[in-house]
Amino acid sequence: MKACVLEKYGEYPIYKDVNAPEIEEDDDIIIKVAGVGVCRTDIHEIFGNLKDRTRLPLILGHENTGYVYDFGSKVHNISKNDPVILFPYITKGYCLNCRKGNDMFCTEDPYMPGIDANGGYAEFMKTKIRAVVSLPKSIKNDDLINMAPLADAGITAYHAIKKVYPLIIPDSTVIVFGVGGLGHIAIQIIKSMTAAKIIAIDISQEKLELAKKYGADFTLLFSNNHDIIKECMKFTHNNGANIVFDFVGENNSTEYSLKLVKKQGTVVVVGYGGIFKESTFDLIIREINIIGSLTGTYSEFTELIQMYLDGKIKVETQRFNLREAAKADELLKNGKIQGRAVLVP
Amino acid sequence: MKACVLEKYGEYPIYKDVNAPEIEEDDDIIIKVAGVGVCRTDIHEIFGNLKDRTRLPLILGHENTGYVYDFGSKVHNISKNDPVILFPYITKGYCLNCRKGNDMFCTEDPYMPGIDANGGYAEFMKTKIRAVVSLPKSIKNDDLINMAPLADAGITAYHAIKKVYPLIIPDSTVIVFGVGGLGHIAIQIIKSMTAAKIIAIDISQEKLELAKKYGADFTLLFSNNHDIIKECMKFTHNNGANIVFDFVGENNSTEYSLKLVKKQGTVVVVGYGGIFKESTFDLIIREINIIGSLTGTYSEFTELIQMYLDGKIKVETQRFNLREAAKADELLKNGKIQGRAVLVP
Amino acid sequence: MKACVLEKYGEYPIYKDVNAPEIEEDDDIIIKVAGVGVCRTDIHEIFGNLKDRTRLPLILGHENTGYVYDFGSKVHNISKNDPVILFPYITKGYCLNCRKGNDMFCTEDPYMPGIDANGGYAEFMKTKIRAVVSLPKSIKNDDLINMAPLADAGITAYHAIKKVYPLIIPDSTVIVFGVGGLGHIAIQIIKSMTAAKIIAIDISQEKLELAKKYGADFTLLFSNNHDIIKECMKFTHNNGANIVFDFVGENNSTEYSLKLVKKQGTVVVVGYGGIFKESTFDLIIREINIIGSLTGTYSEFTELIQMYLDGKIKVETQRFNLREAAKADELLKNGKIQGRAVLVP
Amino acid sequence: MKACVLEKYGEYPIYKDVNAPEIEEDDDIIIKVAGVGVCRTDIHEIFGNLKDRTRLPLILGHENTGYVYDFGSKVHNISKNDPVILFPYITKGYCLNCRKGNDMFCTEDPYMPGIDANGGYAEFMKTKIRAVVSLPKSIKNDDLINMAPLADAGITAYHAIKKVYPLIIPDSTVIVFGVGGLGHIAIQIIKSMTAAKIIAIDISQEKLELAKKYGADFTLLFSNNHDIIKECMKFTHNNGANIVFDFVGENNSTEYSLKLVKKQGTVVVVGYGGIFKESTFDLIIREINIIGSLTGTYSEFTELIQMYLDGKIKVETQRFNLREAAKADELLKNGKIQGRAVLVP
Repeated sequence: MKACVLEKYGEYPIYKDVNAPEIEEDDDIIIKVAGVGVCRTDIHEIFGNLKDRTRLPLILGHENTGYVYDFGSKVHNISKNDPVILFPYITKGYCLNCRKGNDMFCTEDPYMPGIDANGGYAEFMKTKIRAVVSLPKSIKNDDLINMAPLADAGITAYHAIKKVYPLIIPDSTVIVFGVGGLGHIAIQIIKSMTAAKIIAIDISQEKLELAKKYGADFTLLFSNNHDIIKECMKFTHNNGANIVFDFVGENNSTEYSLKLVKKQGTVVVVGYGGIFKESTFDLIIREINIIGSLTGTYSEFTELIQMYLDGKIKVETQRFNLREAAKADELLKNGKIQGRAVLVP
Repeated sequence: MKACVLEKYGEYPIYKDVNAPEIEEDDDIIIKVAGVGVCRTDIHEIFGNLKDRTRLPLILGHENTGYVYDFGSKVHNISKNDPVILFPYITKGYCLNCRKGNDMFCTEDPYMPGIDANGGYAEFMKTKIRAVVSLPKSIKNDDLINMAPLADAGITAYHAIKKVYPLIIPDSTVIVFGVGGLGHIAIQIIKSMTAAKIIAIDISQEKLELAKKYGADFTLLFSNNHDIIKECMKFTHNNGANIVFDFVGENNSTEYSLKLVKKQGTVVVVGYGGIFKESTFDLIIREINIIGSLTGTYSEFTELIQMYLDGKIKVETQRFNLREAAKADELLKNGKIQGRAVLVP
Repeated sequence: MKACVLEKYGEYPIYKDVNAPEIEEDDDIIIKVAGVGVCRTDIHEIFGNLKDRTRLPLILGHENTGYVYDFGSKVHNISKNDPVILFPYITKGYCLNCRKGNDMFCTEDPYMPGIDANGGYAEFMKTKIRAVVSLPKSIKNDDLINMAPLADAGITAYHAIKKVYPLIIPDSTVIVFGVGGLGHIAIQIIKSMTAAKIIAIDISQEKLELAKKYGADFTLLFSNNHDIIKECMKFTHNNGANIVFDFVGENNSTEYSLKLVKKQGTVVVVGYGGIFKESTFDLIIREINIIGSLTGTYSEFTELIQMYLDGKIKVETQRFNLREAAKADELLKNGKIQGRAVLVP
Repeated sequence: MKACVLEKYGEYPIYKDVNAPEIEEDDDIIIKVAGVGVCRTDIHEIFGNLKDRTRLPLILGHENTGYVYDFGSKVHNISKNDPVILFPYITKGYCLNCRKGNDMFCTEDPYMPGIDANGGYAEFMKTKIRAVVSLPKSIKNDDLINMAPLADAGITAYHAIKKVYPLIIPDSTVIVFGVGGLGHIAIQIIKSMTAAKIIAIDISQEKLELAKKYGADFTLLFSNNHDIIKECMKFTHNNGANIVFDFVGENNSTEYSLKLVKKQGTVVVVGYGGIFKESTFDLIIREINIIGSLTGTYSEFTELIQMYLDGKIKVETQRFNLREAAKADELLKNGKIQGRAVLVP
């Protein structure tokens, strides 16, 4: 089959012929890939930032949709050609964290295709029974391609919002810091599942346009610092925001998040790279909460998928042919992707 | 001033001249009434069902908006002519329940104008500092009239929904049983603050039209019992609804609520009159929750008002001149009011 | 091996020789039984009340502890002779409910040894990898025997308490209705994990003594109805209890639970057999919650086990030799067991 | 009357004759002081660190108990000589935060006697109706003196614990960092209302003895850093603690809190002075929560008082005569107070 393979750190994946994966264990499933999202993590892998996990040569791609192609003897309830979307973690379901639904904290050798094993930058990929979510047979291929980014960008945004859902009451203002792959989905999720007003902040005017298109009530270009604080305070009648979702996590976003959040408010940190710094006095006197958020659970994944199927959220995608993976990766690296890039084999 | 006075149980209120209320205590406030909602409780009062609380002659009306007309020396932060909406309970704020925000369970002589004292079926009415919520000075009189029903119908619907808000996750189905004054507001609140699908059930096709107008995804005429169960199960892929809001509370609504709710689901009971009956076995084997819900808190009231001001909910009103109170009461009694009747002095 | 086999409905199990279970699938585990609790469900099985699930001949016993004896190729992390306690449900972990941790609502052919398959009234029994919880190798056999009832009585009591844990604040009063196998463990759990005061109610003075021994602050003999209401109200300064755990679920316990619970209080129903009946008016005016509770989750099971290992709870057991199963069953049927009967092979 | 008056920043309060307070408004209450706790905030006031709030001359003391001496015409439900404890904030109860029960975030001129007005370092002090909590008339004067520190140290500790109460499940380990006035009460509250294991950490071996006396399962002397991490990890089977309560908030306690907390765990910050610093990557990858906590609500205060009255918590006090206030302040400043100093007029 054709695949894009990462062969050397620092060089973009190479489109070439490789052996297709085969059923080896009774709970294996082979998927014919429909779409695979291009994530910032792919860039980290390419440039060797995840060397402690990645083993070359490696087929990247951890946001995958496709059609069932083959499966082991223990697999049930699915048939050949069924459309599916893949949960990014593969776990056995034996450890206590898995038993609580927290697969992302599995303690018994969890792995992610596209990082710890071959992923979806390919015509076919292998997964396991617990990672497959069946979609309606009537789904269009076009939707299947668009849904790929839900498998990581979507679920990560959704999990962050779900963690604080009970706090987002009707007269709340919510800030979405960063309108990239995660942020533009986050805005739609917040819009759909809460009555809050949304402020979107980004360094790119184009991304703020995307934010407006998907429901932001107010947008702020991150360029003149003083303006941002002042304008947010004006919009919130001098209170600040109830919740700040920081999808950036670097370049001062943490500092601004703390300044923009109101008393008894919450900052949810999703992006990373920077340092979070705050006096304990301010933390206490304002009773601020800071919540770290990783990816989501399997059941959250099914809820998010239902939102897409119900038409409550969309994914803004820029499509590339599988052979153009290197190009898509480079555009993402340079901040030139609007929404999410998706490769189509 | 003119007012509609309940003088004898069993007879509708009489439009007549009475003395206008005056400031007596330093935290009193006199309101020039803009609109007063007509509630089913008014009918209960008229027909003597609340004799243990009502003392005749009595001016009814506990859903009130208006303009500040006069106030005692301790009142601050408001000015003459300020537009306001009134929280239905008057409390001192000393008891433990008030200190928790649960004014509706105040243990130190709480009272409700329109039930325990004169209310808003009049040109002027008296209230107290803790019951007044200021509205933007720019608000239109038209909106002020429409908002009156928020003071009881609205806050009761909102409180019921807020109690189970964290349970209404994106792939939920919610049933609204009864699309009257409360139900038609409830549908909009659910639509605005959750991503759930809404099924509306009523005995009137007209009210189901109202439900559709305000966002119900699916409507069911309560006439042929078997159809309702069957159709709900079909709509929910044989699971039943996650949450049932029972705004009826009589005539089999409780029985149907229990049949329509799914495993680990919740029935919120708001309407009353009937008997709730269920085997402990079924309660346990399906892990059903049954939640009684009264009216709401002051802070919930402010959240609901904000939803109205933000355009997220509307109130369907049928307006009557104050002198037509008896007519409005009779129409409501006969189930002929669509949304909520509001009297305008 | 020796086992007690239910051969005919209406007759107690017969002690006899049967074939020992063998490894058939790669995730099977054979346990040498240490202790098996005798549950009221066993009596229901014997008298044919669970005919829709039980297939004769059947080895009863769903509260099991023991030592690992043999296991399939896929089983890991355990060794022969490891002491273990068994989670009562056997599930694959694929369905959405399992993925949420709610194995008791598994939708893909879950089963319980002792009900749907052979259980622990035997020298050896078969289970599966996901049902086994390892215990410290240093555990005494005596403790292993005593722990058997945690596998159903314990986990059911714990789950009921955990469901309302955030509601049991320091100045709460909690009622435990019924001090049998579940109730006497419930009292200890409440005592350990909350600062609430506990009232225990039972029809047997002996069981109330057990309640006192394990921490009840106040006990009430259920014999003269008026006294119970009056005495509870006196103990709670006329408020009623914040939470009522109804481990009886029949013979008026539901009626009394509703009378004994305070405004905005909660009745958790665990026992079954009777009918729950309440006017919607009372449900609303007092904002009562009624919560059905089944058994618990795997992670709750591990928490409960830790409480036992930390010495925070004990199980009151009456031991019988495996060959005396019929006798133990009969004593339980006649209400003559204090705490829980445990059979030892 | 006699009082200890702060007359000059940098000098300890002077014991002298001053005019006794008098009833001026209809909701005023004069208390004959029984006991007044000496808080670290008093030291901050003395040394001018709260100059933006304090106006000299000032009578310090915000942790007060006493007996009702006189009251205004609007005060009800209390009589002369009733024993009382005072909630530290005086508020009107009109603003939205007060209506939610969050008096500590009152937006309408809240004030604290002992900081913003004269407090309890005196024979008599003035308070208001909403700040008084009645105690049983049978209470001993000795208990009344001991309870004084509940009014700030106690309620602050309790609020911090209450914020995360649902997270402290039976197999949890909780760290109490700092065993001073707050910490030694916190240990008892955690012991009483949860089944968690408690690790206490302090720089003083004497304070660790106090921790052991009041229920800590494990104590660690903060002197050799590597040991602390290692020993905590050993005690928690290499997981870290579920919850860390940081009552220090300076001198590396934040840094250690973050190292000692487990995945998906929570650090509650109560002490202040230092800087909180953490990489966003670690915050996310471990899903850590950081919660700032101020003082508590009125209803929390009543719950805490009930715990004391039920004998579930004690306060370790060192008593001084009112004339010795300067001595007590100095001992506290030098870390020489075990538990809490209380002045007795």
